[in-house]
Amino acid sequence: MAQQIEQEQQDTELVAFAAACKKASRVVAGLDGAAKDRLLRDMADRLVASEVDILAANGIDMDNARENGLSSAMIDRLALSTERIAGMADALREVAALPDPVGEVTRMWRRPNGIEVGRVRIPLGVICMIYESRPNVTVDAAGLCLKAGNGVILRGGKEAFHTNHALAAVLRAVLNEHGVPGEAVSLVPTTDRAAMNTLLTLESLIDLVIPRGGEGLIRYVAKTSQIPVIKHYKGVCHLYVHADAEIDMALNLLIDGKASRPGVCNALETLLVHRDIAPRFLERAGALLREKGVTVRGCAETRDLLPWAEPADEADYDAEFLDLILAVRVVDDYDAAVAHIHRFGSDHTEVICTRDYRVSRAFVRDVNASVVMVNASSRFSDGGQLGLGAEIGISTTRLHAYGPMGLVSLTTQKFVVFGDGQTRHRAAIESK
Amino acid sequence: MAQQIEQEQQDTELVAFAAACKKASRVVAGLDGAAKDRLLRDMADRLVASEVDILAANGIDMDNARENGLSSAMIDRLALSTERIAGMADALREVAALPDPVGEVTRMWRRPNGIEVGRVRIPLGVICMIYESRPNVTVDAAGLCLKAGNGVILRGGKEAFHTNHALAAVLRAVLNEHGVPGEAVSLVPTTDRAAMNTLLTLESLIDLVIPRGGEGLIRYVAKTSQIPVIKHYKGVCHLYVHADAEIDMALNLLIDGKASRPGVCNALETLLVHRDIAPRFLERAGALLREKGVTVRGCAETRDLLPWAEPADEADYDAEFLDLILAVRVVDDYDAAVAHIHRFGSDHTEVICTRDYRVSRAFVRDVNASVVMVNASSRFSDGGQLGLGAEIGISTTRLHAYGPMGLVSLTTQKFVVFGDGQTRHRAAIESK
Repeated sequence: MAQQIEQEQQDTELVAFAAACKKASRVVAGLDGAAKDRLLRDMADRLVASEVDILAANGIDMDNARENGLSSAMIDRLALSTERIAGMADALREVAALPDPVGEVTRMWRRPNGIEVGRVRIPLGVICMIYESRPNVTVDAAGLCLKAGNGVILRGGKEAFHTNHALAAVLRAVLNEHGVPGEAVSLVPTTDRAAMNTLLTLESLIDLVIPRGGEGLIRYVAKTSQIPVIKHYKGVCHLYVHADAEIDMALNLLIDGKASRPGVCNALETLLVHRDIAPRFLERAGALLREKGVTVRGCAETRDLLPWAEPADEADYDAEFLDLILAVRVVDDYDAAVAHIHRFGSDHTEVICTRDYRVSRAFVRDVNASVVMVNASSRFSDGGQLGLGAEIGISTTRLHAYGPMGLVSLTTQKFVVFGDGQTRHRAAIESK
Repeated sequence: MAQQIEQEQQDTELVAFAAACKKASRVVAGLDGAAKDRLLRDMADRLVASEVDILAANGIDMDNARENGLSSAMIDRLALSTERIAGMADALREVAALPDPVGEVTRMWRRPNGIEVGRVRIPLGVICMIYESRPNVTVDAAGLCLKAGNGVILRGGKEAFHTNHALAAVLRAVLNEHGVPGEAVSLVPTTDRAAMNTLLTLESLIDLVIPRGGEGLIRYVAKTSQIPVIKHYKGVCHLYVHADAEIDMALNLLIDGKASRPGVCNALETLLVHRDIAPRFLERAGALLREKGVTVRGCAETRDLLPWAEPADEADYDAEFLDLILAVRVVDDYDAAVAHIHRFGSDHTEVICTRDYRVSRAFVRDVNASVVMVNASSRFSDGGQLGLGAEIGISTTRLHAYGPMGLVSLTTQKFVVFGDGQTRHRAAIESK
């Protein structure tokens, strides 16, 4: 009973918390581009100037992490330093330098009755970011959301709670000095799951939820939320080497895609090779992959050509290894390659290597992943690399955003209509 | 126990049902524009040719409706006739005549490393329409979804079950004759709520849910669904008459907005009048409204000017009357009008009537409803009137679509990248 009362008390507080962010978001939406850029640059300067406080807070989180026996990889993600704080500040300055997406008229047309109809970009409203241990997400997400005219609710991991609190305090102080309510950047005051669950029901106050982290967290948020969620479960990216591919080019795409940074979602996980080129290509590919320390898990035909490869099963073709492991399959033809991608692809990034004009066109038409490439490395599947500026995340579901998401994905478009008194039916009063 | 087994059996069948639509949707996605248009025109012809069967099925639904004592308004929505079938066929022909949204390259740019990056419109995949008694939605939604390259799952009301079944059978027969699996248009075989609940969990098979009907149905779907939902709860549309408005124009916008068709979502529900123009404007407006049989519920100042008006309370300013009732409020200034709209608006359509350039710009900037109008009737807030062609629905939430939704809202955009072998890191093999 006492627990229930406590929960209800917390729910009431969370509604007020989200409502304050919604109210503040209207002020952010009304700022012009120059004001937003001044705000972000002042935030960058203030982060650097507040280094001592931020590192002190980070020290508490680091001590707790060591005490709780967190892995060294997790501790590394959590750790801040002078350089990492400078990096966060630079990221804010880069966002300030991007063009303002708000107010852009993307189209305008005139109707036969003389009204003019336009589409204008506006902020989404309030965006809730749910993430795990990296504290830089606190600053990056706040910068991108503010630049696109939104309020942001930040719900980081409990490991980084003191660090996130210190970072958010700096950002809020600068907001207040600029006459913007600090609630425009709101850090959820508790990291317990019940609070997150409550937030995920507030569909009239929060417009979008973006979870970033492991597949488990993302699936949990997607299942729980009554607010739209933009998500990305995993990247099972394929390189298909067609019969006529230029072998050197295909080798470069393979090694760049698999071995340059295997732990990221745009790394290659599966290689598909046309039967006709398999003997020539796999011999050289095998040698290079071995040299890079890549474990190969192949179909029977792959293993005939690369006897050292391990056997692949269905689960390997479905896996996002995020490691120096590559699944390989020899396919009969183009259709078999596309059928494999349709079956196992994750709608992230799919690449073909070919010299054939017709086949390149077919691949771009037949494959509807969020990023489809001809003769380019899957590692370009990234907001910065594609020219979107900084990236807030990536979407492998098709609503609203599909693929890497830049500032524009944090906006929507309204209709504007300019008339001279037009009505749909005969006027009630004849004009003089 | 037996019930549980039955439910599990039904769930398995529904998964197979949705998976068949997903598979068929790939075939639709691969059709070129001319093939889709032939398909829709043949469907139109076949509907007309199948009139006897369709009317027979409709007769069963009508008999049941009368037996179950449905209201005459509901029976009228349900009833088909030669004319109504011809109307459905014409709607399909109109959709066929619209430009194909699929394949449009909306932007393309070159990166410093020479890769070219483009954005191309593609179908969303499978769209699930959930609607109530009007059987024409079956045909309209199927036509729009197919034209945009999607599969569609139709879940109509139980009152129209036999009619919908007959309509879908006609559409599926034509699909099969065109070499497209009939499952591209899939009518849910049962109208029980448990089946709908199961469908709303199938996020890997269904890409979007569009509920159309009363607010209760829409809220239920939004709350239950794990699939993205595009929705529109209600339209509380305002006309704000600024101090300097041309009175004849404002009267025309008011009467067209309130009285031309009060039962639709883009009708006006609240009139806001600047204090300075209130005496002159409300005197004439009151006379016209009375003449049209409109009940006025006003604030104290409105009632000073129109003593016959009823008093308005908070609930009246929040109401979508869908009837010949109008809430009226006299406001102190522009800011008070915008504050009222921010508080009570439903993000549908907001109209200002003014002659002031500065005020018109302020209103378009300050109000972020899905449709914002200057000197034009709210009744233009409709896909056809705005020039989008046929309308699949309207969205008052900001994700993916905002405002009236045409064919383009049934698509998304993928990235395409064309390269010459570019890699992100130094090439593994130097080209010869």
